Amino acid sequence: MITIKRLDLDDARVLLAHARARADEIGVPMCIAITDEGGNLIAFERMEGGKVTSSTIAIDKSFTASAAKKATHDYGSASQPGAPAYGIASAIGGRLMVVGGGLPVIVDGAVVGGIGVSSGTPAQDQDVAQAGIDGFLATL
Amino acid sequence: MITIKRLDLDDARVLLAHARARADEIGVPMCIAITDEGGNLIAFERMEGGKVTSSTIAIDKSFTASAAKKATHDYGSASQPGAPAYGIASAIGGRLMVVGGGLPVIVDGAVVGGIGVSSGTPAQDQDVAQAGIDGFLATL
Amino acid sequence: MITIKRLDLDDARVLLAHARARADEIGVPMCIAITDEGGNLIAFERMEGGKVTSSTIAIDKSFTASAAKKATHDYGSASQPGAPAYGIASAIGGRLMVVGGGLPVIVDGAVVGGIGVSSGTPAQDQDVAQAGIDGFLATL
Amino acid sequence: MITIKRLDLDDARVLLAHARARADEIGVPMCIAITDEGGNLIAFERMEGGKVTSSTIAIDKSFTASAAKKATHDYGSASQPGAPAYGIASAIGGRLMVVGGGLPVIVDGAVVGGIGVSSGTPAQDQDVAQAGIDGFLATL
Repeated sequence: MITIKRLDLDDARVLLAHARARADEIGVPMCIAITDEGGNLIAFERMEGGKVTSSTIAIDKSFTASAAKKATHDYGSASQPGAPAYGIASAIGGRLMVVGGGLPVIVDGAVVGGIGVSSGTPAQDQDVAQAGIDGFLATL
Repeated sequence: MITIKRLDLDDARVLLAHARARADEIGVPMCIAITDEGGNLIAFERMEGGKVTSSTIAIDKSFTASAAKKATHDYGSASQPGAPAYGIASAIGGRLMVVGGGLPVIVDGAVVGGIGVSSGTPAQDQDVAQAGIDGFLATL
Repeated sequence: MITIKRLDLDDARVLLAHARARADEIGVPMCIAITDEGGNLIAFERMEGGKVTSSTIAIDKSFTASAAKKATHDYGSASQPGAPAYGIASAIGGRLMVVGGGLPVIVDGAVVGGIGVSSGTPAQDQDVAQAGIDGFLATL
Repeated sequence: MITIKRLDLDDARVLLAHARARADEIGVPMCIAITDEGGNLIAFERMEGGKVTSSTIAIDKSFTASAAKKATHDYGSASQPGAPAYGIASAIGGRLMVVGGGLPVIVDGAVVGGIGVSSGTPAQDQDVAQAGIDGFLATL
């Protein structure tokens, strides 16, 4: 058997708080989701003005990033028409997200969870997700 | 708590009537759906000759436009292969529509609902949706 | 090949209007859906105060009634634990409805469509659906 | 158009905090979800030890309570075998929850959102949801 480390609810709140602060800073209200290393939801917040559609999208970005151990934007080139992973974007009933804004949370080289952000442009979403991770890692 | 405005059924009927009149004018029978600001269906009509497949598509276009606060055609270029939002078209189980014909209904700067039209070309669908909105706004 | 008769949008509006009048009479705002003989949606209205959950339920009751050519409450006894059709209630992804409020619309002995009503008790839903049909048949 | 009131994210946090405090008190870690009046998710937390299966269940209980304007346990007797609403438990793809633990949040007689709790017994879930509402209403 193996022992793993994963995010707990307190960690999730720290990630959320730092992501939210960055969303406020850039003036884009966001949906923010935190998942554990198995891709399962720990915490979620839709800021006032965050898009209803983005609730599912943020959760699925976080699911993808943690469960596939990969930033969602890293699927970008591989999932394009003609590339080897073309078609992956509609896998798992559309839950596998290849749009930027989902990042794995990595501690000591291991994926311990993920964060997914949606409502802005993919670049804004990714920026806010990264701010959540940076803020969290600084507390360790 | 926050106070919001949203379309009611009477508004939905006005939107439907104006969209239908435009569909008649251009000779393309349509499926037309109206949702509230949360993306939930208020009213729907499939005109004689409207496509069965377009029932779901019209409802999902309206859902996307109201719940993402964005015209579906505005996802067009951003969701193309190679663009940042590529892959978004299969999000939310395929409900997120990037094909033209879904428009948010905006009153006093706030999204109060949406209209989704399908059965014609995306340009025809969008034209009919816009006619619905123009007709509705003229009654306010 | 065969020739069939089915409801058109004008018929659907007559059904809706009579059902709505009855809903007003009993003071229960309803979701009301009309489908054609193939189970495909023609028209839908959520009255102010109708439940958001009932949108899907009304559509699925109408789908079941028209496509299975059977009132949804007629599944009642057959779908009970121990009865032959036990388990049917979760068929078709849960779309097959065995709760009252879905009725086939029958003209000259043939099912030409369906009506589904939801937001009240099953008895109220069925009463409003029947009022829609009675009002419609009186116009033929 | 109509004007409605609904929960915002600050309200959702107050609901979550009071529910969590009660969960700690009874020693049962819970999944807790808050939705707005249209059934759309605002906030979610899975406490350490909360069940992974309960994430979806808590979200769906809150969806049902807010969007159907009804406590989920109130479906209990009506949805039993032989009762009028038997079969409703599998409606909306199984999202309609008839198990206790989902409560509408009612302010000034209007449903402004919902809370859904899962991981304990239905009675414990309902108790924790009620504690969230009691704590929230006391702050108004």
